[in-house]
Amino acid sequence: MSAPVYDRVALIGLGLIASSMFWAMKRAGLAGEVTGYARSAETRATAREIGLCDRVCETAAEAVEGADLVVLCVPVGAMGAVAEQIAPHLKPGSTVSDVGSVKQAVIDAVGPHLPETVHFVPSHPLAGTEHSGPRSGFATLFDNRFTLLVPVEGTDPEATARLRALWEGMGANVEEMDAEHHDLVLAVTSHAPHLIAYTMVGVADDLRRVTDSEVIRYSAAGFRDFTRIAASDPTMWRDVFLNNKAATLEILGRFTEELFALQRAIRTGDGDQLFDYFTRTRAIRRGIIEAGQDTDAPDFGRVLP
Amino acid sequence: MSAPVYDRVALIGLGLIASSMFWAMKRAGLAGEVTGYARSAETRATAREIGLCDRVCETAAEAVEGADLVVLCVPVGAMGAVAEQIAPHLKPGSTVSDVGSVKQAVIDAVGPHLPETVHFVPSHPLAGTEHSGPRSGFATLFDNRFTLLVPVEGTDPEATARLRALWEGMGANVEEMDAEHHDLVLAVTSHAPHLIAYTMVGVADDLRRVTDSEVIRYSAAGFRDFTRIAASDPTMWRDVFLNNKAATLEILGRFTEELFALQRAIRTGDGDQLFDYFTRTRAIRRGIIEAGQDTDAPDFGRVLP
Ligand SMILES: NC(=O)c1ccc[n+]([C@@H]2O[C@H](COP(=O)([O-])OP(=O)(O)OC[C@H]3O[C@@H](n4cnc5c(N)ncnc54)[C@H](OP(=O)(O)O)[C@@H]3O)[C@@H](O)[C@H]2O)c1
Ligand SMILES: NC(=O)c1ccc[n+]([C@@H]2O[C@H](COP(=O)([O-])OP(=O)(O)OC[C@H]3O[C@@H](n4cnc5c(N)ncnc54)[C@H](OP(=O)(O)O)[C@@H]3O)[C@@H](O)[C@H]2O)c1
Repeated sequence: MSAPVYDRVALIGLGLIASSMFWAMKRAGLAGEVTGYARSAETRATAREIGLCDRVCETAAEAVEGADLVVLCVPVGAMGAVAEQIAPHLKPGSTVSDVGSVKQAVIDAVGPHLPETVHFVPSHPLAGTEHSGPRSGFATLFDNRFTLLVPVEGTDPEATARLRALWEGMGANVEEMDAEHHDLVLAVTSHAPHLIAYTMVGVADDLRRVTDSEVIRYSAAGFRDFTRIAASDPTMWRDVFLNNKAATLEILGRFTEELFALQRAIRTGDGDQLFDYFTRTRAIRRGIIEAGQDTDAPDFGRVLP
Repeated sequence: MSAPVYDRVALIGLGLIASSMFWAMKRAGLAGEVTGYARSAETRATAREIGLCDRVCETAAEAVEGADLVVLCVPVGAMGAVAEQIAPHLKPGSTVSDVGSVKQAVIDAVGPHLPETVHFVPSHPLAGTEHSGPRSGFATLFDNRFTLLVPVEGTDPEATARLRALWEGMGANVEEMDAEHHDLVLAVTSHAPHLIAYTMVGVADDLRRVTDSEVIRYSAAGFRDFTRIAASDPTMWRDVFLNNKAATLEILGRFTEELFALQRAIRTGDGDQLFDYFTRTRAIRRGIIEAGQDTDAPDFGRVLP
């Protein structure tokens, strides 16, 4: 247990990411006091019930009062309005961060509201599950996963270094990159895969009306993995796509091109092309396992009922 | 431990499915003696080393000699040639089955070679992992998963019932359906999802050359799940697509249509359409969990290094 990185931290929005941050900060004693706020009375009541945050506040203004670090943990599309609301109450010299899955749009939405006296250091933890809400967080979520910091031009390096120390204290490997590159990399590794999974599950759902529950009963042959991803929060994902349009559409364009090439190979019976393609993609899996970013246990080591 | 369902079982091809069948049959004492054959000396040596099969034979003919059940466990595209090879050596009154992931094409390829004196009862266990080869099997693979039997017209119901008893003894829930329907359901629940996963990983692999190892390091945000599916055996999957062309292309056609509709919603900023779509697909996940076909543990309960 080292000295706290921040005396006072405020979490705005109390869902999966905020609650995981709270438990991870507590685990390592990274913050003196953590305040929290969520817009619904229900979430605030749940937070109080499960001991999420040292103090749950009735307004965002109250939560950020005197905080050294404020982290916005709401959907990407709500960041601007929340920033506007808290701006007059921010402590001079404090740092504002966010955990949004898109960075350029959040910077554009939040930045203009913030007073010159605060530091703005956007972040994005590359960790999550398909569950959401205040009960879904856990202290180990960020362990050995990456968190990307996306400091805006002219940010005080001190402020960035301190936020880095917090994320490292929560278990994360921290990297810095610029917003545009972030949004492209995430379009490949997260946003396009999610849209594709949602689409495939939607197609199966249409067909389910024809074939009753067969797509459910016979899902173990690959499809069920898509349904986990497509069970993620609809608001969060709507906001991601609306706020990372260009990069997501670019990657989906490339995807469609390749898919058409493989469809043509199937149609013409070009087994060699299929075989070569399927061989090439294997290497990337090995890389991910070697990098410690996934388990090598068959079928993710999942235990079924 | 009940009486064996078959006195003598022969497994042709000794990979993931055959080895899992062997261990599952042993676990429940379902077969008197199990013989095995694989085309490569290396696989036969591995099988002998790990005790896979009571007797590993040097030829397929020798393995099927006197067997009451012969199960073809080779890639779909190899089924016909294997059937031709073993046909003269099959015991009259015995049953031939296969475990291929496509059914109509296998029936067309295998059926004509079999003598009238044997029963042909195709099957397909909806269970697997991304690993392959003789060392990858385990006794519990089929537990509580579905196995589909696809009896051809005029099959002796006795023969089908006995094969059903074997699969049930190996832990599976058994259902019957016709080949055409099987191939369509599997195109939705398995074949199209696999091609889509291969494609997405291929796109990322292209981009990897630009962005170094970023798609690997930052894969935890969704992409890594696709890489597991896309790490499956290239020969197996080449054969699946070449042998279930029509149904796979039909489902991919629907998929592309829906994907274009969602891309348009992103482009035009139609958040309601996205939100509604993402809400609808959640229900199917709940159905799969309630049906006992996947775990509700966050992130499949996977344990990371
Ligand atoms: N889930 C992931 O895998 C993941 C990973 C990395 C980053 N992120 C990012 O982290 C952020 C939070 O995600 P999460 O998974 O923690 O979400 P979550 O569990 O769904 O929680 C969202 C929180 O935001 C609040 N909220 C929702 N809409 C709001 C609005 N219009 N105005 C004000 N507050 C609002 C909710 O309040 P109520 O509870 O009162 O409704 C809730 O407390 C998002 O920006 C997301 O992109 C998510
Ligand atoms: N993996 C799954 O998830 C899964 C699930 C359900 C059904 N299936 C079906 O089950 C069957 C076997 O799959 P698997 O996963 O067990 O495969 P696997 O682990 O790759 O093993 C394949 C076996 O077939 C042999 N083989 C390959 N090509 C051959 C050829 N041209 N002629 C003769 N033998 C050949 C191999 O022999 P060598 O070892 O000597 O090379 C090996 O013993 C396939 O039809 C597949 O569609 C697979």
